[in-house]
Amino acid sequence: MFKRILIANRGEIALRIIRACKDMGIETVAVYSEIDGDSAHVHMADKAICIGPATSKKSYLNIDNIISAALITKCEAIHPGYGFLSENSKLVEACQLNDIKFIGPSKEHMEKMGNKSEAKKTMIEAGVPVVPGSEGSTNKAEEAFEVAKAIGFPVIIKAVSGGGGRGMRIVHLEKEFIEKFNMAKTESATAFNDDAMYVEKFIEEPRHVEFQILADHHGNVIHLGERDCSIQRRNQKVLEEAPSAVIDENLRSKMGEMALRAAKSVNYTNAGTIEFLLDKYNNFYFIEMNTRIQVEHPVTEMVTGIDLIKEQIRISYGEKLSVTQKEILINGHAIECRINAEDPNEDFRPSPGEIEGYFPPGGYGVRMDSHIYSGYRIPPTYDSMIGKLIVWGKDRNEAIDRMRRALDEIAITGISTNIEFQKQIINNKNFQENKLDTSFIDKEFSNNKPTGMEVIEC
Amino acid sequence: MFKRILIANRGEIALRIIRACKDMGIETVAVYSEIDGDSAHVHMADKAICIGPATSKKSYLNIDNIISAALITKCEAIHPGYGFLSENSKLVEACQLNDIKFIGPSKEHMEKMGNKSEAKKTMIEAGVPVVPGSEGSTNKAEEAFEVAKAIGFPVIIKAVSGGGGRGMRIVHLEKEFIEKFNMAKTESATAFNDDAMYVEKFIEEPRHVEFQILADHHGNVIHLGERDCSIQRRNQKVLEEAPSAVIDENLRSKMGEMALRAAKSVNYTNAGTIEFLLDKYNNFYFIEMNTRIQVEHPVTEMVTGIDLIKEQIRISYGEKLSVTQKEILINGHAIECRINAEDPNEDFRPSPGEIEGYFPPGGYGVRMDSHIYSGYRIPPTYDSMIGKLIVWGKDRNEAIDRMRRALDEIAITGISTNIEFQKQIINNKNFQENKLDTSFIDKEFSNNKPTGMEVIEC
Repeated sequence: MFKRILIANRGEIALRIIRACKDMGIETVAVYSEIDGDSAHVHMADKAICIGPATSKKSYLNIDNIISAALITKCEAIHPGYGFLSENSKLVEACQLNDIKFIGPSKEHMEKMGNKSEAKKTMIEAGVPVVPGSEGSTNKAEEAFEVAKAIGFPVIIKAVSGGGGRGMRIVHLEKEFIEKFNMAKTESATAFNDDAMYVEKFIEEPRHVEFQILADHHGNVIHLGERDCSIQRRNQKVLEEAPSAVIDENLRSKMGEMALRAAKSVNYTNAGTIEFLLDKYNNFYFIEMNTRIQVEHPVTEMVTGIDLIKEQIRISYGEKLSVTQKEILINGHAIECRINAEDPNEDFRPSPGEIEGYFPPGGYGVRMDSHIYSGYRIPPTYDSMIGKLIVWGKDRNEAIDRMRRALDEIAITGISTNIEFQKQIINNKNFQENKLDTSFIDKEFSNNKPTGMEVIEC
Repeated sequence: MFKRILIANRGEIALRIIRACKDMGIETVAVYSEIDGDSAHVHMADKAICIGPATSKKSYLNIDNIISAALITKCEAIHPGYGFLSENSKLVEACQLNDIKFIGPSKEHMEKMGNKSEAKKTMIEAGVPVVPGSEGSTNKAEEAFEVAKAIGFPVIIKAVSGGGGRGMRIVHLEKEFIEKFNMAKTESATAFNDDAMYVEKFIEEPRHVEFQILADHHGNVIHLGERDCSIQRRNQKVLEEAPSAVIDENLRSKMGEMALRAAKSVNYTNAGTIEFLLDKYNNFYFIEMNTRIQVEHPVTEMVTGIDLIKEQIRISYGEKLSVTQKEILINGHAIECRINAEDPNEDFRPSPGEIEGYFPPGGYGVRMDSHIYSGYRIPPTYDSMIGKLIVWGKDRNEAIDRMRRALDEIAITGISTNIEFQKQIINNKNFQENKLDTSFIDKEFSNNKPTGMEVIEC
């Protein structure tokens, strides 16, 4: 097995990967920016190297510095986590050149699936259902408008290089199309330096259901069931569950087969996620593939008993998968709430600063993945997610009850968090009764704010 | 279901019970002594009542005050946790008189099984194997000596009312018997106000294996497999596992049947534990029954998926068990390390005081049950256990690796703890290879101290 791995990330996911390495007896090297010296991932690793100033471009996105750090410390592999360079094929290339294993898919997989328009084409060829829409991309509003009229409104405009809701617009009326297309295009050009766009049928009342895939270098490909990530705010996931409460054994097996087909069609290796939209008639459509570990991977771990980071590392080393498809059993129900340092009463504005007191929730069925501690100062530079609270229950109701308790129990003082907002979701009757789709938060919380919500500094 | 429960305990087990109640939507009332106002269990409960001064006798052992607290707050039930009044039948009686449900067995069960000599008699009648030894008890050294000679040395002398190693002596040589008997008797008379003693065959190289029992008021009795608690120091459990690495399906089923027979023979109800000694030839002998929840119950929860405190509460309310014997499956392996505020370099002397910094371990497969936090002051008055670190792995090796990681990760500064001692156990080759019995710590650590051990304030 690898002797030493460098983790090219920060915060909770860096800590998560260090934990898996330690479980496996692998030494770890953390990297950190000048502002991140106090993060728990730095102290938990065997070695830590500062790779530049706070600005991501100069540190966590700086491929040269990361490769140098790996070479200096004689790391045999790099785990990229999620975000930052995790879907950047240039890092994969640089790893190859320097004889370092990249813990993830190949450069080719990443490029093929990272380009949404090309990924869609590949899926159509493989016979995986996709959302009706443009063939290829365009930056011309009129051309896109013709496609929109052909597939029928409502439609959704998306940037080829987009992500996190940027470069994306939903259009219900023909007359609004041109204006919204141009807005999305400008956004994408600015954010991603790419104005290639495409248009799709907008699926109403959809659930976001994604399948976790694992594939080794020996031709074994399995899926670990699905996650339901329909609870989103402005296209960002807020709360995730496994399994999905609308999927039965039959549908799971059908969608799982399609997810496997998607992965096999490109001879994919390592961990990946096939994202589908599922409509209320149980039609499902491939939307994209993520060629990395996901933020919400713990809910899959909780119901399958499989440590996904360990599997990623083993696969990269050339080992066979430790389980077969038949051995994957879904046991109970898991929910993850993302804990963000942000103020729901101020339009979810980030709330960095010093954590005065921290009492993590614990006990049976509760898992807290976080790098924070009492006295830790959250830098203003990065994503506002400061932890993930994951619970397991023998069924969805027990998981909901346990999450309510854990949210009551967790105490973070000194900064604002979205904990009260998460409580409002958990206590929402429609959520509890599984009456939800991806517009749940928009529908239930006017202005994305819980009505009558009191933010208690708990 | 009950609307409100009073928890007649403190620290981690009080918090554990509050968590289960919150999961069930039951309100909780905590009690605390004057020195315990800062304990997390006080803040996590819906209400908290001070029941007296720090001295246990005047607060946590004060039945009148506890019953008053329950009546004032209109609690319908009392959960006693472990220790303190959990095996005191007078509390059960007082509950009955005041129309409060005691969450545990009846007064009769408790008295019958609490008296070790009577419990043994009952087991013999039921056909459950017991360790050969005295019939009934005696306070006369000569009488006991005759029994010892009849069953053959080595023998063990035990106090009828004993516990925690007090009033207990192992005797290898005939000539030492009388002196050791009198020492044990004096100890028991002082500690328990009872000088009734008995003598048993001392089983060499035994494993301590105990079966968890659940029994409802509808005649359903099940066992949830075993825990191996062979890692003990001076007869106090230090580290516990489930399942036992020396027990196969066949032996589990045989011992489980005997555990059920033991519980059924007294029509036992609620949660209980049947403790056996298992010798290397797979002979097993009933040693005692604990009529309460055990410190080490979480390892059973981790491998069965059953929340034992919730089951206790449901049983007391009159509900049927939520599972049948067939549905109990042992999944993976769990280990618990007791985290004590004590200094292994100073003969494990308690080390109360203020916790300056606390970083709890987390991530996949790790559970921390503790009431401590940064800034919490451990009072010098009570037991030195300040938390329980529990891990789950798909097999024993993965659990050991994960425990090693979690022990490396946990950081408690400002006081001394046994964390380094636990690391030495986890890293011990014989422990890892499952070559152990109840004398493991005595054998492996001279003077009960790890050799060459460095206590790092981590």
